[in-house]
Amino acid sequence: MTKPPRHAWVGGVGMTSFGRHVGRSLSDLGREACVDALRDAGLMPASVQAAYCGSALGASLQGETGIGQSLLWELGIHGIPVVNVENACATGATALHLAWRDVAWGVHDVVLAVGVDKSVMPKGSVLKAGTAQLETQLGDIFPGLFALIAQKHMQAHGTTVRQMAQVSVKNHEHGALNPLAQFNKRVTIEQVLESPMVADPLTLFSCCPNSDGAAAVLVCSADRLRERGAGAVRVAASVLGSGDYDPMRDLTFWESELRTVRQAYADAGLGPQDLDLAEVHDAFTISEIIHCEALGLCDRGQGGPLVASGATALGGRIPVNPSGGLQARGHPPGASGLAQVFEIVMQLRGQAARRQVDGARVGLAQIMGGSKGNDSQACAVHILVNDEAASRA
Amino acid sequence: MTKPPRHAWVGGVGMTSFGRHVGRSLSDLGREACVDALRDAGLMPASVQAAYCGSALGASLQGETGIGQSLLWELGIHGIPVVNVENACATGATALHLAWRDVAWGVHDVVLAVGVDKSVMPKGSVLKAGTAQLETQLGDIFPGLFALIAQKHMQAHGTTVRQMAQVSVKNHEHGALNPLAQFNKRVTIEQVLESPMVADPLTLFSCCPNSDGAAAVLVCSADRLRERGAGAVRVAASVLGSGDYDPMRDLTFWESELRTVRQAYADAGLGPQDLDLAEVHDAFTISEIIHCEALGLCDRGQGGPLVASGATALGGRIPVNPSGGLQARGHPPGASGLAQVFEIVMQLRGQAARRQVDGARVGLAQIMGGSKGNDSQACAVHILVNDEAASRA
Repeated sequence: MTKPPRHAWVGGVGMTSFGRHVGRSLSDLGREACVDALRDAGLMPASVQAAYCGSALGASLQGETGIGQSLLWELGIHGIPVVNVENACATGATALHLAWRDVAWGVHDVVLAVGVDKSVMPKGSVLKAGTAQLETQLGDIFPGLFALIAQKHMQAHGTTVRQMAQVSVKNHEHGALNPLAQFNKRVTIEQVLESPMVADPLTLFSCCPNSDGAAAVLVCSADRLRERGAGAVRVAASVLGSGDYDPMRDLTFWESELRTVRQAYADAGLGPQDLDLAEVHDAFTISEIIHCEALGLCDRGQGGPLVASGATALGGRIPVNPSGGLQARGHPPGASGLAQVFEIVMQLRGQAARRQVDGARVGLAQIMGGSKGNDSQACAVHILVNDEAASRA
Repeated sequence: MTKPPRHAWVGGVGMTSFGRHVGRSLSDLGREACVDALRDAGLMPASVQAAYCGSALGASLQGETGIGQSLLWELGIHGIPVVNVENACATGATALHLAWRDVAWGVHDVVLAVGVDKSVMPKGSVLKAGTAQLETQLGDIFPGLFALIAQKHMQAHGTTVRQMAQVSVKNHEHGALNPLAQFNKRVTIEQVLESPMVADPLTLFSCCPNSDGAAAVLVCSADRLRERGAGAVRVAASVLGSGDYDPMRDLTFWESELRTVRQAYADAGLGPQDLDLAEVHDAFTISEIIHCEALGLCDRGQGGPLVASGATALGGRIPVNPSGGLQARGHPPGASGLAQVFEIVMQLRGQAARRQVDGARVGLAQIMGGSKGNDSQACAVHILVNDEAASRA
């Protein structure tokens, strides 16, 4: 990808609470997030020039298509180009990437990215990791796959079940401070380890929940920003990649993630040492440990000791998933990538209340979607910067 | 949308035959279309820098997600940004629009748009026109909606059932000349009128079939074109819009279409008098009649007499749906918009064999997706030009 000719900014963000929203439609949830984002941006619906709507499960679980058009219609937004996108768990981040692309290349000045899902699985069904026609028939479903990854990481790097459990404990602690999180209760290491075994070594509290919810981000050119100075958050990097699917690579890292993170740091002109917080894809406890390594927050294989040290907790050196992450905030896959950005924007504006990372200036959001061969089908990394935040520190 | 800084070109096109592909997967069909397009473009898989994959029904009917990644994996394309898109019947055209956008704004130089669907509907189920949660529960399914539209057009403009049937007769004649079409058999007006009634006045042969198939288009910057001069096809306009959903407007036209067509003509610097052929969204016979009016091929309300005059048949003043259209070529919704462009590119290169429109220089593809209020959820118009084709005439 060439370098974009201009900066793109986050004009506004919005999200619903995550959890169970029985009786509410995808449109209803999506509209709430969009209204919040518009209000936050100080923009009218008519300002939106294009929209990308992500839903990973709306078609397969709810039988809904045209979700973007439906929710925008209810919001009074019409006539503009609307594209519905799907990239498994990276769906929301993909919508954001396309919105960013439109603004950064000057196609439009105000573009909406919204993501929504209701993840109630029909009884007895499982979320497919690969294609329904091949991998899933071979047993490739997410908990099984990530249990293998955890076993391999334990074997290769000495990672322990207590270190993995600490990810869940930390993220539930963070979630207890987040009024929009699905779970507001703390858990202990013992509770994580003693919860029902899903796929050894992953117990129930080692896995993120299925969730309902929506999140939205308005991407704007500089002249459409209401809040400048201390409130302005710039998208310093937006990178979307897919895997190389090398079946011979060891399972303890994703090549797509290393490559995407490297590109994002290069685009932003920043490195891991510049990050004040990160939101990563903790679908399983082991995932966060590997993502911390991929982001360069610690050496390869040292993600377990890193979380055990407290460095990634609020108040630590580099807080990871201050929102509670997928583990506690919840995981409607169409929305999660945008919810990560919601959290980072709140943090960079100093509006994260009891979760505030003091003087946060740079945040990174990482999320992956799907699985194929030995890699992700989609990996998205966004780096957000508040250039003025240093003045607050 | 601002004006793009450079031209984008069609580097290559490919498609499978449309019809029933029992036992073949979405990935298998999509890969075949992509291989054809790469071969046509003279490019290797590694040249592709980004890809958009459209499937309107893959998630809801086949339970597949990440279809783009799956089919590209099988093709040896990986690492690049891949986005799965859905916009109902405009899905394939939406993938093309995004690919065009990336090239025209200089984000990438070679971008792949592919669309694929298998449309076998489960017994007793119907394709939803609006949302599953609202319109469909109120009975808003496509044949019923288009029967109302046809009735209204007959009442307002004197359109006759024989004129509508002539659309099906003409498109089946065209389809009989297209080896990739689902139906290669001619039908008579009597056969159309006497086929089983679906929703009065629309009989079975007034409705497009459900189809399986895939189509792909490679969009390139000028320097990646293998064929220049007589073989080079330029994307002169690519416009995507959504409806205004005005419930009070009369049913005999779509505001989204009028607006999108107007913008496309303006972007291309061309008008209806410049068209040598058009591929339009003849999901039902009445649809083609209304689309001809919207394109300005005749006056408002005169689409019936236009088709009856033979002007839109091969050999006529302005051939419409020389491929056979949705009626005879078939309609896998993820692929149809790209199949329209496949046909136009073949025509503009003089490679359409028995369907060739002599000296074709300018072609327009129009397609719509979904329904909401009284308009489409998505309308896409592409205008393609072979600047050198005049020398062949």
